[in-house]
Amino acid sequence: MTQHTLKQFDTDLEAIRTGVLQMGGLVESQVTNAFAGLRSGDKSLIEKVIAGDHRINLLEVDIDEACSKLIALRQPAASDLRAVLGAMKTVTDLERIGDEAKKVAKAARRLHSGDLPYSPKVDLNHAALLASDMLRKALDSFARMDVTLAPELARMDEDVDTAFEAVTRQLITYMMEDPRTISNSLETLFIAKAIERIGDHAVNISEYVIYMAHGRDVRYAGTEAVEIEAAKGAKS
Amino acid sequence: MTQHTLKQFDTDLEAIRTGVLQMGGLVESQVTNAFAGLRSGDKSLIEKVIAGDHRINLLEVDIDEACSKLIALRQPAASDLRAVLGAMKTVTDLERIGDEAKKVAKAARRLHSGDLPYSPKVDLNHAALLASDMLRKALDSFARMDVTLAPELARMDEDVDTAFEAVTRQLITYMMEDPRTISNSLETLFIAKAIERIGDHAVNISEYVIYMAHGRDVRYAGTEAVEIEAAKGAKS
Repeated sequence: MTQHTLKQFDTDLEAIRTGVLQMGGLVESQVTNAFAGLRSGDKSLIEKVIAGDHRINLLEVDIDEACSKLIALRQPAASDLRAVLGAMKTVTDLERIGDEAKKVAKAARRLHSGDLPYSPKVDLNHAALLASDMLRKALDSFARMDVTLAPELARMDEDVDTAFEAVTRQLITYMMEDPRTISNSLETLFIAKAIERIGDHAVNISEYVIYMAHGRDVRYAGTEAVEIEAAKGAKS
Repeated sequence: MTQHTLKQFDTDLEAIRTGVLQMGGLVESQVTNAFAGLRSGDKSLIEKVIAGDHRINLLEVDIDEACSKLIALRQPAASDLRAVLGAMKTVTDLERIGDEAKKVAKAARRLHSGDLPYSPKVDLNHAALLASDMLRKALDSFARMDVTLAPELARMDEDVDTAFEAVTRQLITYMMEDPRTISNSLETLFIAKAIERIGDHAVNISEYVIYMAHGRDVRYAGTEAVEIEAAKGAKS
């Protein structure tokens, strides 16, 4: 690439990265609002989340297109190419987190639309906060190309998984004790599942950051591989 | 690209596409074996599926790497670039289908490990066959770059969704009638959910084929957009 092309590439890449972070911010507020809607039963907030998912989908398509245009036009290689491909992968997971937020909002709508006021049987707040925290950390890690956060995200994900299993067991007990709670318990279970999925996607994003910064694909490579790359620090 | 580079690109792309289809074949047999294991309780088959998921994960990483190397080396543009990016997206969904097959196998293991023989309360065979059929059609569509299958896959996905909702309602009824069935019913529900997700991923693949063949990203664009592109036939 010539000096001019290089500069143009950097400008275009920066625009894409800003777009990813804006999309990330939007996804974060979708997640926050979905859980706020679940707790409060605020109908307008719940509907806002459900309607807002469409914008996130469009952002994914837009950023994807900007990435493939940038590749075709500037023909980046090595870390430049990885930066673009990593952005494409990141938006896929952000879009899926958006889907999970929408699912939570839809479950919240059903739970709060019954004749009786919805009284939660299990505490999802802890797991929901953990997953939101993971998402924020994953976006931080993307923003600063900070590979050191990946092991922490992996550990937090284990906590989310443990919380999910505990919630499932608790819900089974409630359902057995009082079968009238089965419908609502299943809604709660699907919400817990959504939280668990948000955690998985946040982990994925932190793994793409390692790929972008170090060129090593640590997906499915186990905790040790993630820790080795994190210990190397950001090389970017 | 020079004539030689072009030829080399075609050879490399063909190798990638063959790899995607081999991975697809493996994922198909994981899905088939997972449901066969669920029906029969054949422990060795169930364990084979659970252990086999790792190979699919590695294939995703390998094909991903081959794709980014090809882009860096041959700097494809237009439909050539779309073919490579489409392959990358396709393997992401294939890997997720593999995850769903593993989830079904794990649920099958739990269901068949109880003291009592497992007797299914609801019929999942119809939905499972439908989802397997969708996967095969999605892989056909990828193999032949056949955009005309996408609308059919979208319709089949609606049937799978309808089957999932019916299964959920049936299971709620069973759980309420006999709370002792709650644990097993939840396992069955998670299996139904896995079937529903396999259908979604198959639809995604058929949408990538439209992107690869026509350059139009029809994700989230609605049924009409998919039908318009399908009606244009394969331009490749």
